[in-house]
Amino acid sequence: MAKKSEKNSLVEICPIRNVVARFGNKWALLIIMLLHENGSTRFNRLGKMIPDISTKVLSGTLHTLEADGLLTRTVFPEVPIRVEYELTDTGHSLVPIINTLTQWALEHMQDILAHRKAFERTEG
Amino acid sequence: MAKKSEKNSLVEICPIRNVVARFGNKWALLIIMLLHENGSTRFNRLGKMIPDISTKVLSGTLHTLEADGLLTRTVFPEVPIRVEYELTDTGHSLVPIINTLTQWALEHMQDILAHRKAFERTEG
Repeated sequence: MAKKSEKNSLVEICPIRNVVARFGNKWALLIIMLLHENGSTRFNRLGKMIPDISTKVLSGTLHTLEADGLLTRTVFPEVPIRVEYELTDTGHSLVPIINTLTQWALEHMQDILAHRKAFERTEG
Repeated sequence: MAKKSEKNSLVEICPIRNVVARFGNKWALLIIMLLHENGSTRFNRLGKMIPDISTKVLSGTLHTLEADGLLTRTVFPEVPIRVEYELTDTGHSLVPIINTLTQWALEHMQDILAHRKAFERTEG
């Protein structure tokens, strides 16, 4: 049985886990940063900027971000049809946080990679 | 073919994607916050604090965080054996970023959930 203090910390974290989990998607972070840097961007161009993402995963991630209101999807009725994605204000408001995260990762990357290597040797 | 500016932004993001991807794990974020709040904590107690995580996923996430040097695992040779997990300095250094993330999520949660609902209706 969890103690009261444990329950409190869980309750405190739980309601927002659903929203925080979006960050758990590395593609979502990358797409937000690319749209921030490039402005309104076509689907195909996004795909070229992230060569290791499949069309299905790119499409699914964009769909989720659109549902959350972090970006808009605009269809231009041209031939061939043109679809562009653009960050909303809410989407833009995430950029400083992602930048902080990226900065932290840059600062600690060497340590973390070295630690992983040493850890694998210990386990091997 | 990607343009030069697109390649640059990709190169800039790529090397740290591997580290940033850790954030992509909602369990990792939650475990770091719980260890920050509770200090050195036994495996079973962590499991009780996160009722919806399986033993296998908890164990795997702790293992990854240990490999990255974000927490330490200490085995106390008692009967029954006691295993405790504790954040390292690197692990603690993530806490302010996770707090900012959590704060953002709290501020935008209602908007995001409302947007999702409206979006589902449009699609339905």
